[in-house]
Amino acid sequence: MQTPRLTQQIQFILEIDRLKQILRQTLLTDGSRRENSAEHSWHIAIMAMVFAEYAPPGVDLSRAIKMLLIHDLVEIDAGDTFCYDVQGNQNKAEREEQAAIRLFGLLPSEQARELRSLWDEFEAQATITAKFAAALDRIQPFLHNRETKGGTWRIHEVTRDQVIKRMLPVETGTPELWDFIQQAIGECVAIGYLRE
Amino acid sequence: MQTPRLTQQIQFILEIDRLKQILRQTLLTDGSRRENSAEHSWHIAIMAMVFAEYAPPGVDLSRAIKMLLIHDLVEIDAGDTFCYDVQGNQNKAEREEQAAIRLFGLLPSEQARELRSLWDEFEAQATITAKFAAALDRIQPFLHNRETKGGTWRIHEVTRDQVIKRMLPVETGTPELWDFIQQAIGECVAIGYLRE
Repeated sequence: MQTPRLTQQIQFILEIDRLKQILRQTLLTDGSRRENSAEHSWHIAIMAMVFAEYAPPGVDLSRAIKMLLIHDLVEIDAGDTFCYDVQGNQNKAEREEQAAIRLFGLLPSEQARELRSLWDEFEAQATITAKFAAALDRIQPFLHNRETKGGTWRIHEVTRDQVIKRMLPVETGTPELWDFIQQAIGECVAIGYLRE
Repeated sequence: MQTPRLTQQIQFILEIDRLKQILRQTLLTDGSRRENSAEHSWHIAIMAMVFAEYAPPGVDLSRAIKMLLIHDLVEIDAGDTFCYDVQGNQNKAEREEQAAIRLFGLLPSEQARELRSLWDEFEAQATITAKFAAALDRIQPFLHNRETKGGTWRIHEVTRDQVIKRMLPVETGTPELWDFIQQAIGECVAIGYLRE
């Protein structure tokens, strides 16, 4: 039987399908099209598994994976805000807060609270688990931009300083990878993928 | 620094991006396009969180989520085989085995073994965690087909008996949802989404 509780859960499951239509700026590695936020979330959840060894002590890996799976859901209502879009980022928090209320609110209340707490933790960036998750959320598009010979960086004439600032969460979230990122940024500038 | 180990891990991460280009038969809930296997994997991983309460005793939820995230990776080489394609399913196992060897083999060996063991467990369907994961892998396209007024069922003239057979993993993987599925199949036949 489809109980009222199950109906709520199915409604949520069907609603989040819309994240597959939210396009990010990042290109697929073959440059053929822009990536959507659902497949991006899938990608970084697997990255959490593969990069688990770079997680600082105290990271709850299972919680990080759950966090990464749901962290972009608010974009269904709020859209994906390009990280270098100054204007779009001004009211981002407010738009996403409203989205979180509506979307998680589709679920039975204690599940709404559970998923909301994951999202709040990611947004607050106060725990090491959230910092680890955020680092992966930055590293994936970085790898894509490098792989696509500058990809979004070239399209939007992004500079070295902007990328260094954008990648700073790696320093605390996956400190062992910070040297690699800094070196890779330097190489991307040298080769012309990224502006000085 | 990009150590040889990190290079292997990054190569794997970039390679699995190709799953975003493997199209399944299932349509998005608004019918606008076919779903790809990466976003499908994301969707069922969240379903594991939302439907956790329907998991039988003994299910390892974190392991089920990891399993769902990687269960379709072999399609990068082997393609997605439509479940009602008799011919395509004849050599499916062999094609996927070769794909598993190549793809997981991109990783450092102990990580290759870890991910391979997740995939093997899903394929073998011998543990309750694998059965729970498989049930979700069946329920998601079922919900999409119902939501899109028959979707893939109508395109391929699928019958009630085919869907009942296809949905059987629900009976053991999420037994509490089996009644709902059976009832929903009956309703889909009555309304003409599914052939008798």
